[in-house]
Order: sequence, then C-alpha cells, then structure tokens
Amino acid sequence: MNHKHPDRVTPPRTDKLLFTPGPLTTSNTVRQAMLRDLGSRDAEFVEVVQGIRQHLLGLAGVSQEGGYEAVLMQGSGTFGVEALVSSVIPHDGKLLVIVNGAYGKRIRDIAQRHGIETVTIEVAENMPAVPQQVSESLAGDSGITHVALVHCETSSGVLNPLQEIGAVVERFQRRFIVDAMSSFGGIPLDVAGSGIDYLAASANKCLEGVPGISFVIAKRAQLLASGGAARSLSLDLLAQWKGLEKDGQFRFTPPTHVILALHQALAELEEEGGIAGRAMRYAANHAALLKGMRRMGFREYVPAESQSHIITTFLFPQDPKFKFEEFYQRLSARDMVIYPGKLNEVDCFRIGNIGRLFEGDIEALLVAIEATLSDMGVTISEQLTNH
Amino acid sequence: MNHKHPDRVTPPRTDKLLFTPGPLTTSNTVRQAMLRDLGSRDAEFVEVVQGIRQHLLGLAGVSQEGGYEAVLMQGSGTFGVEALVSSVIPHDGKLLVIVNGAYGKRIRDIAQRHGIETVTIEVAENMPAVPQQVSESLAGDSGITHVALVHCETSSGVLNPLQEIGAVVERFQRRFIVDAMSSFGGIPLDVAGSGIDYLAASANKCLEGVPGISFVIAKRAQLLASGGAARSLSLDLLAQWKGLEKDGQFRFTPPTHVILALHQALAELEEEGGIAGRAMRYAANHAALLKGMRRMGFREYVPAESQSHIITTFLFPQDPKFKFEEFYQRLSARDMVIYPGKLNEVDCFRIGNIGRLFEGDIEALLVAIEATLSDMGVTISEQLTNH
Repeated sequence: MNHKHPDRVTPPRTDKLLFTPGPLTTSNTVRQAMLRDLGSRDAEFVEVVQGIRQHLLGLAGVSQEGGYEAVLMQGSGTFGVEALVSSVIPHDGKLLVIVNGAYGKRIRDIAQRHGIETVTIEVAENMPAVPQQVSESLAGDSGITHVALVHCETSSGVLNPLQEIGAVVERFQRRFIVDAMSSFGGIPLDVAGSGIDYLAASANKCLEGVPGISFVIAKRAQLLASGGAARSLSLDLLAQWKGLEKDGQFRFTPPTHVILALHQALAELEEEGGIAGRAMRYAANHAALLKGMRRMGFREYVPAESQSHIITTFLFPQDPKFKFEEFYQRLSARDMVIYPGKLNEVDCFRIGNIGRLFEGDIEALLVAIEATLSDMGVTISEQLTNH
Repeated sequence: MNHKHPDRVTPPRTDKLLFTPGPLTTSNTVRQAMLRDLGSRDAEFVEVVQGIRQHLLGLAGVSQEGGYEAVLMQGSGTFGVEALVSSVIPHDGKLLVIVNGAYGKRIRDIAQRHGIETVTIEVAENMPAVPQQVSESLAGDSGITHVALVHCETSSGVLNPLQEIGAVVERFQRRFIVDAMSSFGGIPLDVAGSGIDYLAASANKCLEGVPGISFVIAKRAQLLASGGAARSLSLDLLAQWKGLEKDGQFRFTPPTHVILALHQALAELEEEGGIAGRAMRYAANHAALLKGMRRMGFREYVPAESQSHIITTFLFPQDPKFKFEEFYQRLSARDMVIYPGKLNEVDCFRIGNIGRLFEGDIEALLVAIEATLSDMGVTISEQLTNH
C-alpha cells in the first residue's frame, strides 16, 4: 500500500488514511504546529488569530474594508452554525431552510430548538435545491427574514446551486445564511457575488486543519444589526466578534493548539495555489475514485451533474454478502477508513477525498476495496451500468 | 534562566513559560500525542474517549456503577458550564448562584441569557462563600431548585468551602452544581461526599491537557430527569451523553487531537501519583511563589486561609512607576507570561502555578520579576508587612 505523501517524510507513526468528511488526514507540518504552548493573550498568538481572520476573508474573496468580518468560534462546525443561527435571527424573525440532507435538517433543528419560527423546502436527498422553489416560497411568505442553505450536503455530496439561490434571496431582500462546511476552501465560491450575508465553515474540512474551531464570515452591517438576538453566551456571535475586535482575544479560552494548526494549514493552502489549486487536487482525487469505483461496479447515489468533488455516496451492492460493518472493518484493518451513510432514503456509504490525500492514496484505497470485496466474496456485476 | 523540565529533553522550540490559569505550559509528550490523525468513529478513538470518561469518573471518586456519568463537551470550560446550566435546570427551575468573582458572575449571566430565574448571593471578591448565607437563602426561598458554586474562583484564587456548602444544599434537598474548572485534578475534592449533582471542568487546567474540550460529571438519575430542558443543540448535555453511550461517538465532530492530548495528560497525572501527587507539586510551587513574592514586598489580595494553591492575585505595588502593561511586556520578553487581574474591587495581577511547572520555574519567574522591577525602578518596601 502506498502511504507516501510528499510531506510525510518522518511520520511519528503511520495512521490510517481517512477517507471521511472529517476529522481528516492532515499534513505532518499542520500537526507539528501544535507542539507549542502559546498564551492566549500573548502578542504572538493574538497576531496568529488576526492573521487567520484576514486570511479567511481573503479566501472568501471579501475584506474588512468591503464590510465583512471573520469570527472564530470554539467547537465543531455545528457549534459555528448554531452560533450563527441562534445569534443573528431576531426573535420576530422567520427562517426558511432548504433541506436535502442531514445538515439542512440540522439547521432546522437548531432554529427550532431556539424557538425560531422555521419553514422548510424539502428536496430529495440526491437532488440539488431548486431556485424556483425558493422564489415561490419567498413570494408567498413576506414574513421570511432569513434563508439558509447548505452549499455541499456532506450527508450525500450534493452540491447546491449557491449563486442562483443567492440571487433569488437577494431579489427578495432577505438575508442569506450559507453552511459551507464541507466546501469552503475546496470549491471556489463567491461570497459577495452570491449575496451571502453569513457563511459558516470549519477548520477541519477543505482547509485541512484539525477539528476544534469553526468560523463565520459575516457582513458587518448585518452582524451589528443583529445585536441582542443571541440566545446563548458561549455561542454569541456578535459578542465573540466584539471581543476579537477589541484586543484580538477570545472571550473564553481558545483552543490555542488547534488555532496554530489552522494557521499552518492556511499557509499550506496558499502553497498549493489557494482554493483553485486545492480544488484541482480534490477534483483529480474524485475523478480517480469515481473511475475506480465504477469499474468495480459501484453506483453513486447523486447524479454526476450535482455531485461535488468532496465526498461521494455509493449505494450498497445488491449482493447479500455485502455487509457494511464488515466491509468497513476489513478496510479499516487495511488502514483505510471510509464513512457510513447518513441518508434516510437509501442504504449507502460515503467516501471522502479531501484532506492530505493524493491520487496515489485513492489508488491504494481502490486496491484495498477490491481486495476486501474479494475477501468477502461480494460480486457487483449487476451494477455495471451507471447513470 | 532555568527552563529545564524533566520531560523537556528535545523541545521543538522553547516557548515562554505560562504562569496563567490556561492555556498552560504542557508536557512535550502531551503535545506530541496530537501528532496523530484518528477517525472519530475509529475503534481506537472510541476506546480513547471511553477510557477518558472512566478516568474522569475515577478522579472524581465516583463510578458508573455508583450512578455517575462523565460527558465530554467540545469547546472551552465556559462551553461546558453553559451546557450544564442550560441543559439541566428545568424551565420552571430557579437557580441560586454564589458569586465572589468573575466565574460566579458568568454562571449567573449564562442562566439569565437562557431566561432561567436566578438569584445570587454576593460575597466580597477576596472572601470565600459563607455556608450560613446559603442556608438562609434556601430556607427563605423554597422555589430555588439548583445552587451553583465555583470551587476555586480563578479570578481571585479564593477557594470556596465546597463540602460545607454541599452539606447545606443536600440538607435542603436542592441540586448542587459546581464549577470546578481550575481545581479539578489539582485539589482533592469529594464529589459524592460533597453532595455534588453536577460538576463542570476542563482538560486545560490541572489535568494539564490542551484547551478545546470540557466535561461534566453528573449524577445519572439527575441528568436523565433533566430530559428536554436543553436550550441549545450543540450544548445539549443529555443528548451528548446519550450519543457517547450509544456507540462511544460524539454527536458532532470531536476535537480528536485535543482529546488524544487529554488521554496522554491523564496518564501523566497517574504517573505523578494522581491528584494527591499533583496537588503536592502545585502546593510546593505555590509556597515558593508566595515566599518569593512576599520577600519582594508583594501582597496577596486573598487572605492566606482562603487562598488556593492554583492561582494567586497580587495587588499592584503602590509605586506609581509600576505600570502593569509594562511589567507584563517586560516579563514576557523574559519568556515569562503572567496574567492580568479580573476583579472589580482592586488593581491586581495574577500568577498561576499550574501546568507543567516546577519549583525551578517558579524560582526563574521570581528572578525575572525582581530584575523587571529593578529595570522599571519600582520599589515596594512599604508593602513589606503581610496580613
């Protein structure tokens, strides 16, 4: 098996490769950035934090001068999404959530937990959201103040039409909230051009940092106008921003090591040619994955035209000898970690191709999958045709 | 300057020593535990998480068999406290918070943010809470369902009489919530014997892990009885526990690297002789600090009998040549990071002596402080007497 990465010259030990939506396989140098203990009020650390905030704005194609802010938030991506939703929607606001997977549902659940009036547009889990439906919903309900969309549904891999839906939301002058958790840094997106008011993402997806910190990119004017809506203290987005602006410090102890890793990860993203460069690697990984999986007879759940190059959902083979748990464990024993499905509609599993993974790793995974199927005696010839 | 630690044989670089309440100076081996990428659903990681949960119960002197549970929560200590307060107090509950510093106030703020009816007992910031006052409050208000106390007020260093107040709360059959953020692992405490229903703490204080994960020790019966009260999705303590119980996995991406560091930190705590052994080192650090600071003429803010061996508040010298910001920066330039004050009542600064610090480090700090005062031309002879 080929585990060799350009940056894996002296690995502390060889861990399994993670073909998941996160935690991901990261570079040695990103992990080594965590070997330092910095004080959270230390000038060096404050500079790191401010540098990250500027860097994130740059990746979003916006700037402070242009009226945008980047706010870091402790915790997983969901913490960032909850900070956003529970902080910026006023008590008399109403949220329209477009749902075509688990992460759309999660936004709805967050809003409902906070007593925010919520309506949804439900779309099949393997289909992208339809701008026309959003337009009809907004035309029919002037009470809707905010619209939330997941850019890339990590539960299926569907890529939603961000720009088109953003145009609709802008036309109706509502606020646009985007969960770009698994796309930010790996798929070019135009925050200003898509009329995005708020975008939430995490260090631990396409930015290839380690888990433990999320962030929100926000239009400053909107963020300020939201004052007083925050339902939680820890997850108060405006207060967090004010703290970071005042003296560069977090209100509550930041995960300093995780932040140092993100700082290094952002430098490595630049070295790779920024988002465009990274997107190319991921697209190549994804193409190699699809080619190999199709060759073995696997079928994807999401039609190719709506499939992101981040994570792919494959249907279970029909052979009753295929048991996912066994398949997973056998692959794991070969140092290849894939991901279970997260869909209601079909039996499936997921393979991510983000993180410090290269085509050689994808090839190694494909070899392992083929050997595992053989070990299990699974045949999937009936699935050779693909949509 | 002597920065040599037993475990600092091959430091990746020499960082400043952190005499703060966290982030702390940690051991090389704790940081090196973060050099691995584990999948969050991987059997090895699940085992690490379950091991940590058992270990934390053991440190609290309780067990699952005895009816207690340990729930890990992403984020800083405040996230753990908010998860606790916002999840377990019912909508018709009423919280009594004993406030003698910033962290007592924070519990009050959290409760108020969630619309929980809250009353407080306010105590001077350098004085411990008085059990008799708690008794009077509970006798006078049968509506109070929960009582919250900060064990060691990190903002001053005051140690509150946990056991005595716990006995009062138990006598009145109310629920007892303890913020043991800066004491857990460094000061022996008796969870069952103090009638504690819920205790919140963090990886990044006396356990000497890195920041990014907090936890709650809870009486299972109480936690289960709290069902449905959680005001937030991310910070839903009961749901988090159910997730960890079901399959050992977190509901939302855990900070895997931070958790690996905690796992290593707990092993090193055992090597040191558990909480008793660690408390001895901290007490020795603290004694050396006090002796040296008093010799220079500094005065503590908290009377000795209420002073913890975790963090100490020193009053500013009266010499107008003493400017804290300059003092801080000059010490930082000497690789010694202290902490600003966080009190309303007096001008002060704080010095922590927890983390991977030994008496030699304290002596090095004292030398640096003496030299810094000399550089600044500050004299503090008028403060030679101590209470």
